[in-house]
Amino acid sequence: MKPSALSKLGRRIALPRISWLMQAALSRPKLISLAAGFTDNPTLPTEISRKLLDGILRAPETGQPAMQYGITTGENNLRELTARHLQNLDRVRPAAPSHSPERLMITGGSQQLLYMTLEALCDEGDIILVEDPTYFVFLSILQSRGIRARGVELERDGIDLAHLELVLQRLKKAGELRRVKALYLVTYFQNPTGASTSFEKKAGALKILKQFERAAGHPIYLLEDAAYRELRFAGDDIRSALMVPGAARGVIYTGTYSKPFAPGARIGFGILPEPLFTAVQRVKGNHDFGTANLLQQLLARALEMGLYDLHVAKIEKRYGQKAHVMKRALVEFFPPSVEIWESGGGLYFWARLPGGISAGMDSKVFRAALKADVLYVPGELCYADDPARRKPANEMRISFGSASEENIREGIKRLGNVLKKFID
Amino acid sequence: MKPSALSKLGRRIALPRISWLMQAALSRPKLISLAAGFTDNPTLPTEISRKLLDGILRAPETGQPAMQYGITTGENNLRELTARHLQNLDRVRPAAPSHSPERLMITGGSQQLLYMTLEALCDEGDIILVEDPTYFVFLSILQSRGIRARGVELERDGIDLAHLELVLQRLKKAGELRRVKALYLVTYFQNPTGASTSFEKKAGALKILKQFERAAGHPIYLLEDAAYRELRFAGDDIRSALMVPGAARGVIYTGTYSKPFAPGARIGFGILPEPLFTAVQRVKGNHDFGTANLLQQLLARALEMGLYDLHVAKIEKRYGQKAHVMKRALVEFFPPSVEIWESGGGLYFWARLPGGISAGMDSKVFRAALKADVLYVPGELCYADDPARRKPANEMRISFGSASEENIREGIKRLGNVLKKFID
Repeated sequence: MKPSALSKLGRRIALPRISWLMQAALSRPKLISLAAGFTDNPTLPTEISRKLLDGILRAPETGQPAMQYGITTGENNLRELTARHLQNLDRVRPAAPSHSPERLMITGGSQQLLYMTLEALCDEGDIILVEDPTYFVFLSILQSRGIRARGVELERDGIDLAHLELVLQRLKKAGELRRVKALYLVTYFQNPTGASTSFEKKAGALKILKQFERAAGHPIYLLEDAAYRELRFAGDDIRSALMVPGAARGVIYTGTYSKPFAPGARIGFGILPEPLFTAVQRVKGNHDFGTANLLQQLLARALEMGLYDLHVAKIEKRYGQKAHVMKRALVEFFPPSVEIWESGGGLYFWARLPGGISAGMDSKVFRAALKADVLYVPGELCYADDPARRKPANEMRISFGSASEENIREGIKRLGNVLKKFID
Repeated sequence: MKPSALSKLGRRIALPRISWLMQAALSRPKLISLAAGFTDNPTLPTEISRKLLDGILRAPETGQPAMQYGITTGENNLRELTARHLQNLDRVRPAAPSHSPERLMITGGSQQLLYMTLEALCDEGDIILVEDPTYFVFLSILQSRGIRARGVELERDGIDLAHLELVLQRLKKAGELRRVKALYLVTYFQNPTGASTSFEKKAGALKILKQFERAAGHPIYLLEDAAYRELRFAGDDIRSALMVPGAARGVIYTGTYSKPFAPGARIGFGILPEPLFTAVQRVKGNHDFGTANLLQQLLARALEMGLYDLHVAKIEKRYGQKAHVMKRALVEFFPPSVEIWESGGGLYFWARLPGGISAGMDSKVFRAALKADVLYVPGELCYADDPARRKPANEMRISFGSASEENIREGIKRLGNVLKKFID
């Protein structure tokens, strides 16, 4: 074999294990996938988008700018509309400096913002604290960049604050605190567990991070990923970490229109404190000098005309119904000893098999499920490589996002039948 | 000041000097910008896009997939259409392995492909050889990532091959050859000079790179940036470096639909040899797991229905006319001692002032031009930081891309009047 010219990143970067799941899905036509994080197809805003794009492109004064290059940080109208949208969600007055459009950037999904933030923040060997478990593509970024992850135990209302403190104490003792750059929390209907972080825990986490900043020698940011915030069908919205008094300087907030509107018109956004904002803006200049204008204008129109809000109201109902179907099927078909974390939003339920039974990629349960033509995401894929604990293997992420109601029921039935063989 | 938590990249990344130019343009309403690399507004395909998007979104069987997540490497139909398009440009049979859709990836403009390729290829301290001068955003990426650039002299038909060999010899002598990863060439109507690389020079450059690979201990790639290839209004197309016999394994080719179709529907693409393709695919998975589907489907339709080709034929005429207006104005208003590089395509002419007269950012010429309400890109911004030579300061990039014919003439008149004050 010819020696390679690849960089350390190029050599290190691993095949996402989730890719294997995607391929498995493609090769079995009868397979019901409860694995994919795709959104619901029939409710995608094709008709709204068709009309809005028609309006934008029909008039040269809006059509030409939409088809031209724009500004690296995003179009000003969309930045302002997005800031106002966040102000409404957080029920804060428009002039709040924490929610200013000046601190807001438009990106290619919130994924791009996460990536660029890590570029601007972390060197190889640095440490990010994550929920245990957490969003696996975020873990892929860390892996590829040689950034270490340390897990913090997750409860139904967010991370265990006592454990956060313990992890930081241990890192301090080991002389590693200066490598800790941020705590990453998926705060709304978390991927993969569906858990939401209470406002009290956001405030508590920020307070703890602050206590360790002096010893770290620099800020330790709270990186709040709110990707699923607007896919809420039960309960009240929780205020973002931006609302913790005086904490705006320590919070990075990322959100997206992909999930609530359309993944195919990939627009995300983020709010960042300085000096991060400036650094990430420059990184964005090197990535693509600004996200596609046409998509930005589509979202701006949808927000401006109230169609976005109408659409979100529509999909809330839809996902509520799908979650309800999944819940009923779980009660009907799953062995009662399987612990279920239901969610009031998002796309996922979380299932925990009774101790000792593995649901991992190489487990009998996973193979039997695949044979029965039903796919889930093994929970172990969502755990960081953290030497301080073994990865639990007895969990599964099951999604009601893209499957039809009929397939949700049938998929859970198949999965339940598989589980019954291993649990009695 | 609070100490910062930024990474080395975050601390290092500089404000692109071009940003200052953009801001200057915004603050002077009467200013004529011959600086921007924007494309021609009135010929943007707003009406074509409106109709195509209407068709895509009206039918659920195409509208829903267009608004959903897709595949990391890009939609298969667009990959196939793009491969066929490249095969046509290079006049090669469809089955050519060098032009296979399997080796082709769809990205957010070709900029994103350049960025990801450098991520997968270069560590801090590695070396990329570039044309002297070259595309300044590429230089920004190198700067931010701590990658060193070494310039190779540029002639009217591409780099000076003897100088390329000399540069490589010197690097070999200095024990630096193992750090050299690629030679980056903007081969068609180059940004900033408008020069195109002959096929003979592409073949010659590849041969020279190959000679040094053994000593380097790994492949040294030719990274061919063909962003302006289809903005051709005079002369024949030149075959890409993919056509050099047996060279496909050493060539990375990047192209884009941004310039010939629409920057606001930002779709680019690239062809990469293994193991780079796999590494970049995984990087893309971490950046955004695939470019916005809606835009991919728009381009696929435009290609499929022949509307893309019709549009390219239209803008060729338009840019040809604008270049003609600029050429006539240059003859009329510029002092004859200014050397002009005309181009048969792209967006730029290149002007070289007689020795000793600076046109740089801090020069009297630049300040006088700004005062006269005309803006150009100082050529010095397009030169890499290379300790082996001083950056020439007596050059300017002047663009006929976005200004109207009237403004091109008036802008060149203003600039000519400024130059006459300094040159006699």
